[in-house]
Amino acid sequence: MRGTVLHGPGDIRLDERPDPVIHAPTDAIIEVLATCVCGSDLWWFRGVHLADKPRIIGHEAVGVVREVGAEVRTVRPGDFVITPFLWSDNTCAHCAAGVTSSCANGGGFGALDRDGHPVDGCQGEFIRIPLADGTLVAAPHPENDAMLASMLGLSDVTSTGWHAAVSAGVRPGHTVAVVGDGAVGLSAVASAVALGAERVIAMSKYPDRQALARELGATEVVDSRGDEAVAAVLDLTGGIGADAVLECVGTSESLNSALTMARPGSTVGFVGIPHDAAPPVSRMFADNVALAGGMAPVRHYLPDLIQRVLDGWTAPGRVFDRVRPLAEVAEAYADMDQRRATKVLLRP
Amino acid sequence: MRGTVLHGPGDIRLDERPDPVIHAPTDAIIEVLATCVCGSDLWWFRGVHLADKPRIIGHEAVGVVREVGAEVRTVRPGDFVITPFLWSDNTCAHCAAGVTSSCANGGGFGALDRDGHPVDGCQGEFIRIPLADGTLVAAPHPENDAMLASMLGLSDVTSTGWHAAVSAGVRPGHTVAVVGDGAVGLSAVASAVALGAERVIAMSKYPDRQALARELGATEVVDSRGDEAVAAVLDLTGGIGADAVLECVGTSESLNSALTMARPGSTVGFVGIPHDAAPPVSRMFADNVALAGGMAPVRHYLPDLIQRVLDGWTAPGRVFDRVRPLAEVAEAYADMDQRRATKVLLRP
Repeated sequence: MRGTVLHGPGDIRLDERPDPVIHAPTDAIIEVLATCVCGSDLWWFRGVHLADKPRIIGHEAVGVVREVGAEVRTVRPGDFVITPFLWSDNTCAHCAAGVTSSCANGGGFGALDRDGHPVDGCQGEFIRIPLADGTLVAAPHPENDAMLASMLGLSDVTSTGWHAAVSAGVRPGHTVAVVGDGAVGLSAVASAVALGAERVIAMSKYPDRQALARELGATEVVDSRGDEAVAAVLDLTGGIGADAVLECVGTSESLNSALTMARPGSTVGFVGIPHDAAPPVSRMFADNVALAGGMAPVRHYLPDLIQRVLDGWTAPGRVFDRVRPLAEVAEAYADMDQRRATKVLLRP
Repeated sequence: MRGTVLHGPGDIRLDERPDPVIHAPTDAIIEVLATCVCGSDLWWFRGVHLADKPRIIGHEAVGVVREVGAEVRTVRPGDFVITPFLWSDNTCAHCAAGVTSSCANGGGFGALDRDGHPVDGCQGEFIRIPLADGTLVAAPHPENDAMLASMLGLSDVTSTGWHAAVSAGVRPGHTVAVVGDGAVGLSAVASAVALGAERVIAMSKYPDRQALARELGATEVVDSRGDEAVAAVLDLTGGIGADAVLECVGTSESLNSALTMARPGSTVGFVGIPHDAAPPVSRMFADNVALAGGMAPVRHYLPDLIQRVLDGWTAPGRVFDRVRPLAEVAEAYADMDQRRATKVLLRP
């Protein structure tokens, strides 16, 4: 089969890779219908993270089950399924508590499973999914491309934006500020709207993303960052601050802005992978601004989010603004690296 | 009147100070029945914080109202009252949201009020209380010294420990770990018990504080700190981590320990004033461990906590292990600085 491999910074190739086979009775093999490139993949593409050998990459996919191990009970060949960006048993103490991203027996794609067998990346034609019952969730076969894109969004980007909103405690009537205008930030805007926010203030300097943010339900756009953005949000909230802030970047500046524009007693939901980020603890302490969030427990959210999509929530798929065949995966990375696209959907 | 002044590191004196007078119609003057020394006062006493002039000090008190301004409605001369360690209007947006510690019109003791008039410290004979209706809460006159001590505890130390437990989301059945064995940490132990924790693991190396922690309801004591304490808590929780962790120190080490011994998806409630502390954000992110807390909104908690004391909750007063006359305030600071006492109650 063909699978995406990062051979070095900027060097993305679609290589010939071994077809996956069932190793454990809890495995399933899926044929990928759609996958995509994540903002976190770009850290590797740009060489911010360095791999000492070629890296099998990609962690978002929807597909059709082709084969299951003898112990798999909840999905069957032919089922349309969504995979979270991490696999999990969904039974350990952490999974039972809803934190499937910290599964005691789980792991990630493109790495080894607990038995030492390699797990495929998701930017390829087939994927062996370990612990299939605890990982995959089946849904009706998508009726059209928009539905397919929305289901793919749930694999990571939508669920991550959702996690920001849930972690920040967004409730009906809230004024929510969203820091970050990438696909996750835009998904966070849509999630805040879905959770009943009355006002959603999106921060973006790019007209195309500002427009998409408004389409997804943002009521106000602030086209600045840092102290200027903080001042703008305080001004828009009568000096009080936002009821909830969703931090979707992960830098010290963005964390600082988020924690400073949040009203006393509120929570910043953070889902931007922190890169040498130091939150301003004194600010948190002085005004009781909490910091919650992290890796999204996608498996935990999937049943609810799938139902929302089936009920007509179209926002998840709308962050994909370009579709390419998998053969053009290198161009897809370049699209996102050069901001020609917010998020690229790839079809094998 | 006599009032406590820090003239320099280690130099605490009971000075003759002006008797307070009503400046604003919202002021009240109280005669102090009991006050005490806070762990945060020691930062000044030890010269970790430096003042460029003599500092009026002390921010915890209970007393009797002697005089009120024309607009004061909720307390009257003769009332026994508790003052939070900050004064507040209890009506602004932040107070209405329960964050009285961030009152838009409030402030602290030993500083100037919004009109530029000095506000007394609490380690003295009388205190002018600005915004008396929004600050003071009346309670029945204490029947005995134990009740008086418990009411004094609510002014800061108990409410701060309570805030750690509330911020961490302690619920019935939880296993709670408490980092810090000072008066606040011990109050946090008692608060976790009062909120229904099934197990409370106290961290302390000092036999007298270990004993008091057990008296207050700690079910286990870990006599180590840092990585060793983390390992002990993980061991006691089957490798899962504590359901809630109460951080009552404020150093990088203690924050790091707290955030590492907390189970994935849980919250560390932090009330130790952070001193150059940097929380481990990557750990927080990887396992969704949240950090919440800060300055306790004492005024918000007082009605509930007063009722708990009236209903027989004796823990608040039990962290005071020495009583001295106010004239011995310098000795009280030395007691706490040299760990001869956990918390000293002073009677004018």
